[in-house]
Parts: sequence; structure tokens; C-alpha cells
Amino acid sequence: MNNSKTKITLIGAGNVATRLGLALQKQGYSVVEVYSRTRQAAEKLAQLLGDIPFTDRVQDLNPATDLLLFSVKDDALRPLLQEIKPLEALYVHTAGSVAMEVFEGYARRYGVLYPLQTFTKSRETDLSSVPFFIEANNEEDEQQLRALAGSLSEKVITLPSEKRKALHLAAVFACNFTNHLYTLAGDILAQQNLPFELLLPLIEETAAKVKDLHPQDAQTGPAVRYDRRVIDKHLEMLQDDETKSQLYRLLSDSIHKSAQ
Amino acid sequence: MNNSKTKITLIGAGNVATRLGLALQKQGYSVVEVYSRTRQAAEKLAQLLGDIPFTDRVQDLNPATDLLLFSVKDDALRPLLQEIKPLEALYVHTAGSVAMEVFEGYARRYGVLYPLQTFTKSRETDLSSVPFFIEANNEEDEQQLRALAGSLSEKVITLPSEKRKALHLAAVFACNFTNHLYTLAGDILAQQNLPFELLLPLIEETAAKVKDLHPQDAQTGPAVRYDRRVIDKHLEMLQDDETKSQLYRLLSDSIHKSAQ
Repeated sequence: MNNSKTKITLIGAGNVATRLGLALQKQGYSVVEVYSRTRQAAEKLAQLLGDIPFTDRVQDLNPATDLLLFSVKDDALRPLLQEIKPLEALYVHTAGSVAMEVFEGYARRYGVLYPLQTFTKSRETDLSSVPFFIEANNEEDEQQLRALAGSLSEKVITLPSEKRKALHLAAVFACNFTNHLYTLAGDILAQQNLPFELLLPLIEETAAKVKDLHPQDAQTGPAVRYDRRVIDKHLEMLQDDETKSQLYRLLSDSIHKSAQ
Repeated sequence: MNNSKTKITLIGAGNVATRLGLALQKQGYSVVEVYSRTRQAAEKLAQLLGDIPFTDRVQDLNPATDLLLFSVKDDALRPLLQEIKPLEALYVHTAGSVAMEVFEGYARRYGVLYPLQTFTKSRETDLSSVPFFIEANNEEDEQQLRALAGSLSEKVITLPSEKRKALHLAAVFACNFTNHLYTLAGDILAQQNLPFELLLPLIEETAAKVKDLHPQDAQTGPAVRYDRRVIDKHLEMLQDDETKSQLYRLLSDSIHKSAQ
């Protein structure tokens, strides 16, 4: 496949669309248009991509494209499909929890390209080690998606929608919830006028450890030692914060149970 | 201070005692004895330190020492102090949640040396960027602890017990609970016969991101987007797992609240 001949339309201008769009363009793909329901967001990403065309009217998409890459909120996908005038292109979404069959009845050729990573518009991410999970409703397009993902990453895996859902759920725990625990830890420090940055070596080591040890074996702290004295003190410190104390109890119990 | 002339006795042979003992020895300190209530654990660490003396009877500690470094479960500290024959040495513990005053009545000179890091016996950790929080009941010993911690790390901070407690609580969220979320994420993958390793690039990037962005601004995922469709699907997938579904609800609500 000749990358520069493959024309890609980005449907969505959020974190995933931004990072994938820029990475694909860097690999020589032609990103030909950006759609977002917010004109400003579409324009901003189109500028980042070198002032390419953009629109906030999905009915007006330029039909001269090979691949529609949907990176939108799950809820937004189906309404968009109902509005688009059917195009002779490969329809692909990047969602963890949406079955490939969402495209049935709207497109002849379709598939999924799901990168297991967290993206932020403003932050360039090294994609080369990120696992990309693909599927397609026909062999030829699966090969095309494999080549496309393979231009970004060394790790491309064909996976059915059912298993992809489990990946997405696991990612919510390992990334979104983890990041929120960082926020809560930062809150606790802020109350004592201590800066969040003090936690960075600990956060880094906690993440690095599980490259060598399964997290079950890497577990440390009062809950796994079942150090009641510390646990009770911590709960006392959290007594005015219902969310943190509920989380503390639930997570400590779960750690203690896992360790037995 | 001449490191090689400072004699250190390790009280405890767990993760912290092991990593600190080895690191201090490497810096030229004389680790002269190891105590653990488990003879086998004491012997193992003593061997790692080059076959130094060890004991499981705290009454029999060699009195020829300058510093007793207590790295034991919080509950174990006071009973040990009651058993030790008073020694003319600096008494120091490494616990996040124990006030320095625990030593009152048991020692004349005492202090705290708390490294904000997670330690595993089998894993060497780079201590140079780890913040060490110290305090002592007299100026001279505070200087000595500052020098000792300073030989291990570039970041030594004098901090009162009250604030150290908050650091410890924050560390439970940022490290122990985070690591347990990795375990839960791994469970979800294991149910689909998918290996934990698939999550490593995501875990690494989640941790790396907060070096540049406050976690509040780095938050991604269905909860912060308030993507009800995904949230409901995930809760359905977790319906037979009470712990995971309670955590999912609590963390998603907390993320959603924080974002407003």
C-alpha cells in the first residue's frame, strides 16, 4: 500500500483524532479533511495538519476519501452514521467499547482500529510500542488496517469486538482510575501545602515495577501487611471526606482479600 | 561525618530495611547487625550485607552501634522499644504514620527518616531522586540524618510528623491503591486470556503524563467525558463482581465531580 495515496478523513477532533491524525500524516498518509460538530475544534485540528479542509456539517463531507476514521464519543457515532451520505470508503472507528457491527447498514466495508493508550491533544506520544487492536468485515480491509496500524506501531493484533471491550474496561482501571488516584493523592498533599511533584518518583517506580513483577507480587503498603493501626489512622484522617474514605475502605479490603 | 565510622543496626529485615541497608552500606556506612523477629529473615538480610551478625532477640543487640534504624510494622515498634535495653545511640524509624515522639521515654536522641518510595526486597531502586523526609529531637542529630539521607538522595526535606502523615496517606493512594488497580485490570484481561503485559505502555504513559500535566488536567476516559453509554456497559460487564463494580461507580462519580 502506498501511504501517500490513501486519503483519510478524520471524524472527530478530540484527543484520539488529534494524535492519530498527526501520526498518520507523519507516516505519509494524506489526511484530507477534518469534521467536528464544533467548528472551532475542527478548524484547530485542520490547522495543526497544515491548513487542510474542515467542516462542522457531516452531510457535506468531501466524498473523495478512502477511509473515514471515527474518533467520537460512543453516543455520537450512530447519529453521525445516520446523517452521512453513504461514501464508497472504509469506515473505521477507534472506540474500545463499540462493536464493529455498529457500521452494519451504513457501510459496505468497515472495521476497527483501537490503540490501547491514553491520548492528550497537547502531548506527543510514542506510538511504536502501543498495542493496536484491529478487525474488519473483510480480509482485504483487515490487511489494510494491519498495514496502517503497522506504520505506527510494532504491535498490531487482530481481536474480536467482545475481547476489545474487556481491554477497554481494563484500561479504565489501569489508566483513568489510576490517574484519578493521582488527583486524590495530590488533593491530600495540597491540604498540607505540599506540592504534587513530591509524588512523581513514587508514581514512576510504581508503574516501572510492574514491568518486572506482576502487580499482585509488587503490592506494598498497610493493606497488604494488614497493618490495622495505620489503616485506622488513615480512615480517621479521611473522616470528613466520604469519597476518599469509602475508596480507602474498599481498596484496602480488596487488597487484603487478594493477598490471602 | 565519616560514613565508614557510623555504625548502623537494622531493626527489621523487610523491604525498607533491605533496600536502605544495602544502599547505606554502598555509601560506606557500617551496617553492623540485623535484627528481625524471624531468624530466617534476619539471616537472609545479614548474608546480603556480607555475612554480618544477626539476631532474633532484640534484648541481645550489640550495644556498639551509633544508629538504630527501625523499619518494622507500625504495631511492632512500641513493643520492641519496651524490650530493647536502652542504648546510647540515635533511634530512628522510617514509618510514614508514626510520630517521632514514639521514642519518648525510650531514647534520649531520636528522629525519623522517611523515604517516599515503594520498596521491594528483590528490586534495586534508584534512590537519588526519592524525597527523604527527616526530623530529629535535636539539631545535631537532624544534621546527621540530613547527611545520611543526603548520601542517598538529592532531595532531603525536614518535615514535622503531622505533615509526614499526610504524605504517607497520599502515597497509599498514588502507589498502593494504584498498584491494586493494575491487579484488577490484569484480572479483567486474564478472564479473556489476554496477558497483563498489554497494559504496560498505557501504565507507563499514564504515569509519565503527570510529569507535565497535573492529573486533574490529564484525566481521560468515559467518566470525565460523562459517556453514560460506556459507563453503563462497563457496569453491566462487572455485574457479577461486587468489588469491581462498587469501585467503578465510586471512582467514576468522583472523576465526574472533580471535572465540574
